[in-house]
Amino acid sequence: MMASQCSAMYGRYTQELGVYAKEEAARLRDGGLRDGAGLRRNTSVRSRAADLLEYEKDPCAKCQMCASRCQKFLISRVGEDWIFLILLGLLMALVSWVMDYAIAFCQEAQKWMYGGLDSNMLLQYIAWVTYPVVLISFSAGFTQILAPQAVGSGIPEMKTILRGVVLKEYLTFKTFVAKVIGLTCALGSGMPLGKEGPFVHVASLCAALLSKFMAALFGGIYMNELRNTEMLSAACAVGVGCCFAAPIGGVLFSIEVTSTFFAVRNYWRGFFAATFSAFIFRVLAVWNQEEETITALFKTRFRLDFPFDLQELPAFAILGIACGFGGALFVYLNRLIVECMRKQKTINKFLLRKRLLYPALVTLLVSTLTFPPGFGQFMAGQLTQHESLVALFDNRTWCRQGVAEEFDYISHHHAWKHPQVNVFITLILFIIMKFWMSAVATTMPVPCGAFMPVFLIGAAFGRLVGEIMAAMFPDGIHVDGSVYPIVPGGYAVVGAAALSGAVTHTVSTAVIVFELTGQISHILPVMIAVILANAVAQALQPSLYDSIIRIKKLPYLPELGMGHHEKYNIRVEDIMVRDVRYITLNSSYRDLQEMLLTGHLKTLALVECRDSMILLGSIERLQLQSLLSLQLSRQRRLEYLHQLAQETGTHDPLPSLTSDSSPSSPCTHIHLNASTNTSARQEVHSNHISKAFFFHISNFLSPICLQVAEWEDQKLDELVDFKNCKIDPAPFQLVEQTSLHKTHTIFSLLGLDHAYVTSMGRLVGVVSLKELRKAIEGSVTVTGVKVRPPLASFRDSGNSTNVSEVTELHKLCMRHKGLSLPREPNPPDVEKNCEFFSFQNGQRGTRSLITTCEPSGC
Amino acid sequence: MMASQCSAMYGRYTQELGVYAKEEAARLRDGGLRDGAGLRRNTSVRSRAADLLEYEKDPCAKCQMCASRCQKFLISRVGEDWIFLILLGLLMALVSWVMDYAIAFCQEAQKWMYGGLDSNMLLQYIAWVTYPVVLISFSAGFTQILAPQAVGSGIPEMKTILRGVVLKEYLTFKTFVAKVIGLTCALGSGMPLGKEGPFVHVASLCAALLSKFMAALFGGIYMNELRNTEMLSAACAVGVGCCFAAPIGGVLFSIEVTSTFFAVRNYWRGFFAATFSAFIFRVLAVWNQEEETITALFKTRFRLDFPFDLQELPAFAILGIACGFGGALFVYLNRLIVECMRKQKTINKFLLRKRLLYPALVTLLVSTLTFPPGFGQFMAGQLTQHESLVALFDNRTWCRQGVAEEFDYISHHHAWKHPQVNVFITLILFIIMKFWMSAVATTMPVPCGAFMPVFLIGAAFGRLVGEIMAAMFPDGIHVDGSVYPIVPGGYAVVGAAALSGAVTHTVSTAVIVFELTGQISHILPVMIAVILANAVAQALQPSLYDSIIRIKKLPYLPELGMGHHEKYNIRVEDIMVRDVRYITLNSSYRDLQEMLLTGHLKTLALVECRDSMILLGSIERLQLQSLLSLQLSRQRRLEYLHQLAQETGTHDPLPSLTSDSSPSSPCTHIHLNASTNTSARQEVHSNHISKAFFFHISNFLSPICLQVAEWEDQKLDELVDFKNCKIDPAPFQLVEQTSLHKTHTIFSLLGLDHAYVTSMGRLVGVVSLKELRKAIEGSVTVTGVKVRPPLASFRDSGNSTNVSEVTELHKLCMRHKGLSLPREPNPPDVEKNCEFFSFQNGQRGTRSLITTCEPSGC
Repeated sequence: MMASQCSAMYGRYTQELGVYAKEEAARLRDGGLRDGAGLRRNTSVRSRAADLLEYEKDPCAKCQMCASRCQKFLISRVGEDWIFLILLGLLMALVSWVMDYAIAFCQEAQKWMYGGLDSNMLLQYIAWVTYPVVLISFSAGFTQILAPQAVGSGIPEMKTILRGVVLKEYLTFKTFVAKVIGLTCALGSGMPLGKEGPFVHVASLCAALLSKFMAALFGGIYMNELRNTEMLSAACAVGVGCCFAAPIGGVLFSIEVTSTFFAVRNYWRGFFAATFSAFIFRVLAVWNQEEETITALFKTRFRLDFPFDLQELPAFAILGIACGFGGALFVYLNRLIVECMRKQKTINKFLLRKRLLYPALVTLLVSTLTFPPGFGQFMAGQLTQHESLVALFDNRTWCRQGVAEEFDYISHHHAWKHPQVNVFITLILFIIMKFWMSAVATTMPVPCGAFMPVFLIGAAFGRLVGEIMAAMFPDGIHVDGSVYPIVPGGYAVVGAAALSGAVTHTVSTAVIVFELTGQISHILPVMIAVILANAVAQALQPSLYDSIIRIKKLPYLPELGMGHHEKYNIRVEDIMVRDVRYITLNSSYRDLQEMLLTGHLKTLALVECRDSMILLGSIERLQLQSLLSLQLSRQRRLEYLHQLAQETGTHDPLPSLTSDSSPSSPCTHIHLNASTNTSARQEVHSNHISKAFFFHISNFLSPICLQVAEWEDQKLDELVDFKNCKIDPAPFQLVEQTSLHKTHTIFSLLGLDHAYVTSMGRLVGVVSLKELRKAIEGSVTVTGVKVRPPLASFRDSGNSTNVSEVTELHKLCMRHKGLSLPREPNPPDVEKNCEFFSFQNGQRGTRSLITTCEPSGC
Repeated sequence: MMASQCSAMYGRYTQELGVYAKEEAARLRDGGLRDGAGLRRNTSVRSRAADLLEYEKDPCAKCQMCASRCQKFLISRVGEDWIFLILLGLLMALVSWVMDYAIAFCQEAQKWMYGGLDSNMLLQYIAWVTYPVVLISFSAGFTQILAPQAVGSGIPEMKTILRGVVLKEYLTFKTFVAKVIGLTCALGSGMPLGKEGPFVHVASLCAALLSKFMAALFGGIYMNELRNTEMLSAACAVGVGCCFAAPIGGVLFSIEVTSTFFAVRNYWRGFFAATFSAFIFRVLAVWNQEEETITALFKTRFRLDFPFDLQELPAFAILGIACGFGGALFVYLNRLIVECMRKQKTINKFLLRKRLLYPALVTLLVSTLTFPPGFGQFMAGQLTQHESLVALFDNRTWCRQGVAEEFDYISHHHAWKHPQVNVFITLILFIIMKFWMSAVATTMPVPCGAFMPVFLIGAAFGRLVGEIMAAMFPDGIHVDGSVYPIVPGGYAVVGAAALSGAVTHTVSTAVIVFELTGQISHILPVMIAVILANAVAQALQPSLYDSIIRIKKLPYLPELGMGHHEKYNIRVEDIMVRDVRYITLNSSYRDLQEMLLTGHLKTLALVECRDSMILLGSIERLQLQSLLSLQLSRQRRLEYLHQLAQETGTHDPLPSLTSDSSPSSPCTHIHLNASTNTSARQEVHSNHISKAFFFHISNFLSPICLQVAEWEDQKLDELVDFKNCKIDPAPFQLVEQTSLHKTHTIFSLLGLDHAYVTSMGRLVGVVSLKELRKAIEGSVTVTGVKVRPPLASFRDSGNSTNVSEVTELHKLCMRHKGLSLPREPNPPDVEKNCEFFSFQNGQRGTRSLITTCEPSGC
């Protein structure tokens, strides 16, 4: 499912070039006014002079040029970006609003069914339970059939995509449809699921599709890959922004969740789109007569003049720390459930066969427990997420009725009051039940997020603490005469921000709650609690999204933790792989074959020669495989056989071999197989097999097959011709002394997959994401990764110049000066680095060509 | 004043190494428990095994190890970063609070003096005017004497420093003292100046000094350069955060203002420190009985249930656009004043002599105009900035008294009411006068920012629009029965955010106003106005900080504008300088001398040889200069003379030459001068002079001086010995096809100063910040920058592989295979790239060594 092809920023140079060339070619082929304009737009900076010349020569070109100029002007002035962002914002606001409408309708329908059947409790139960089970099953089935990529939150995948990794099928129209419909059904079921994670994905899908659409219409800029990445990051902001009507929080949340490095110039693309989207989203509500004007989604009415007492701050801090532990526990629980299901073979097998059973069972369990006349009465089961949140953010105190009822609006807090049971018990039960329910529900294979459920649990927990505080200090803590009672709703706001911050490892949940509630008076408690919760949660567990990334085995780079000062002292030379796979300019096809069989990296280094090891570039494995298959291609074999036939004088000794249709002898059969096979790796294998096979059956088929084998050997001994091979001429290079910290920064900045370690142009090692990950996660001693020798730190002391570098340079100099450096004896450290050069003597004997390379000077 | 030394991230590798080695050496020298622990802390990851071995061998090491472990545990658990950030936050909060206290005291003193003299208007005027003139003059003089670097805002400099440029003296204790005291006096004078820009600088100073202090105490991590940069960016956030008690807005504002790329992992370092700082800052106010509890600085009391009508949005949008134009005008005016003063030679000369006169004159003018009984009565002259803001954010309507006076607090709005003059006239006068006053005042050579004055003007402008709206629609616009009068205070908030956003090109001013006013109800109007203001201002002018950066000629990289799609089509090959200065492994000292005399870049490329042009690394100019001076050093000259004396048999022919103290002959005098001079560049010159001099005075001093000249020539013809030279072994490389967009990204990501352009390891060009700047600013045709040939885009069409690369590779291959590629005729494109190689034939004749390099293989 997760066929990921990692093509880092640097690796894309050559690929992009190819695309560019193809575009240009396509445009040239098409001709016409539009394409002519497009072409000229491309060359506009450079070919002003050429334009003018053309103008002089050809009066017909005049109008065409004018048209192109106008179009250029229009597009560059009004700005494609602006139009794009406005369209994106509009689209997403509509999607969000329609979806909310549909969800509300679904929930109303359930309530109506449930309410209409209040005569018979069994019927009521069946109605209460069947409805969500059907919706969730439909959602799971629909997603499974149409696009399995739409399952889950989408934020982990977007983080991976924005890192530069190409995930297939993640940004297609099918996925869009599956995600939107699946999400609507899943949320309509009333299960503890959220919409913000999926909305990030939906917005990105929107942006990708819109980009494609615009590219088809206007071409040019919309095809640029970098630009599309920028638009994707803006889209993530729009997703969160229009989900909560929280433009600022949306932008910040999406940055924190999806990026490691953020370009400030993209920053306000996000702000613009998210604000526009949030505006339209709320305006739709006003136009639909739901609201009088644009206000917050969960408006609170806390008092402004004395929002909280300074002496309440310890309580807020404790709330924050508790939320930190809670958040870590949630992430752990979520991962435990997934891993448990995977490990249990029997469960796993069963679930794979009956894919819809798991979500249906989970839904059945959850909805049974929340059945209002049943256990649901102790945990406000009949309230939807929205209603629960409104009740929890209420500015009145529950445990002591009648305080500060200045405002009059519909409240759902009566649902929390059970005639027999204390409100504290109800809250505690609600928290505990919702906690595991949310953790389980988010593992269902439907499009769903975990933010909103966690937010709700946090709000309930905050409310609990607030109510306890209110019960402890009924007249407030303030000492100076005036009575300022404690506002438990404020605690609910703080708790919601802290728990959701802890689970997602973000600080911007603070901003989201301000925008959601429309009040910023509790800014300091919220900030303190969120930061403390983050500190605790980050020390214990990865964020929920990173956890999912690890579970799904997507490529990732862990963050450098705070306070790990060792990271500043590990260097690249301690973690790099020294046994680099490389090919030289003198490599034969046989070397290539061996290299392809033994290595596993996606790219191979190209060095000048084995002696100098000067890095010239890197070549993708696929390119090399195609080179190899070209060398031993069917065409060439046939040519050779023809030639053979002509040489021996026989008129076509093996007609079956030369005819395209029916291979008759096993010898040719193998060869034809090998050459027509698309996967070159298989070819390599089959070549090996074929050789063994030849000796085995040579009795039957000699001498022609033997001749073919000989020819093959000959061909393999030829030098590789790199002419038709795409080479990345400047792969990213690091130095041995680069610190781990800097390496991490560069890798995450540039979205690298691997980097070569060079010293004076000479290739000495390679560091890939894997090594870096191992080093950061502390397991530097894992196999394949060389550990820095103990006492290594002594090595650099004493002299300010690096010894090995000097030695290396010395060697180069000596080679150039004909080994006659005046009055300078070889320093004793030369031997130190000779170990690298010595391995060339221990090679297999097939390299007759290498020794001949030395006289050909450079 | 602005002696800037640009050392980009990449250029620092070697430097860092040296520092690292020196640290290690120093630690080894010191010994003792603390240093032992420090050392072990450094090697802790790698040398667990070694530790254990040591444990076995030496029981004495046990306790030492335990101590080090404990320390390590303590430090890594509690986290140096946390301690550091808490200290920084605490310190800055105290500084901010004390400074506010002092400023309030100054202003009170002025009011008291002014109030006490109300019997005599002349005396009153003298008191009103003298007080600020004295304070500003003191501030200017004090800053000038102690640390001229403390002048101005500090944000432009911090932006430059965070880009990786080292500005001397910007982060010293002297500057700290000058900035804090100068700023207090400047703000105490009541001039329209702000404190947030300087506070960013003060916080950075605090962080830098604290880092030094901690490094002296604990060593280790505090010496790391990357970490210090991270701390600086957190410090910027703290600066804004504790200035406005706005942690979130502070972090965002500092990011927008100082960074182009931001690491999300630093993000919440900033949040933590800024929150802590804001918290302490406000708690101090509570403890000082100024406030009852922690609330916003400029608390507003707008109604929550219906903050604004949807139909008011066009007014908000117009306000935003007008603020955009206003912001651009402010930046333009500010720059115009500075440039005007610079250009006018007479003014300039006069000002340079009497440095204190300019600020004194400006202060005199401004305070005369604001004199309350004079013109000041028409523009609320007696109010301080704080009082004016509180009045402008008032939720009551001024033009129609008596609406919504639910809250009762001290208001200064009576100052705006003139008995004869309309409130609109007062507001308009206030805006116009404050506008030019602020623009002029911020050019004074005192520590001052422009944010707060601009914020105030914006608030006044917003208020004006609001009052006009309130006058036009006295009963509000809403149609559905209920009357919701317009809130002009809301317009003031929107205007303040929009104008300050336009001047600074930031969106986060929106968040700052929410935190300043403690209300978020106007989020949508604020966001819309800020975004529109930004769009307008960014299209017209650079931000105020970028404008100052350009005025001060600090190194910078302009942002890529939006909608400039041409940027995606320009490539590095279009802008790179092809005539790269380089040295080869075979260069003689004479080549080096020539290269140093002709070039101007700070680093020179080192290539393998002129034929292969393979890039090996880069060397700093300083390094080469020291190499050259070493080769012709005094020591060597003396040795040579000794040798000469021994050869000729004479016993010491020139005793004066060998004696250190008194050089007697002009010949030696010059030489001694040359060799003892620290600047190698001068030496190069003096070498030239000396040679001419020799021929001139050879009559007197021959034959010895002639022999010395000959010896010198001989020495210059020797090959350069790079053994003692620090070489950056992996300078940053780009490919010719890299787009301008990507190049810009990489340059700003990595803080590069220049990058080499290579093709298959071969050096083909260099791109520096200058070329990039020119290309972005549109003047691609400036001299020294080669423009891409017209019709260049056709070049890549047709074939997906790049032709020139293949040719290049082909050549390399041919060289290696001894010019005998089997059955492959030379492709016709070879000639195309020969132009590059052909220039080697047109060289000066000094290179006899190059031709000999070819047989020595690689």
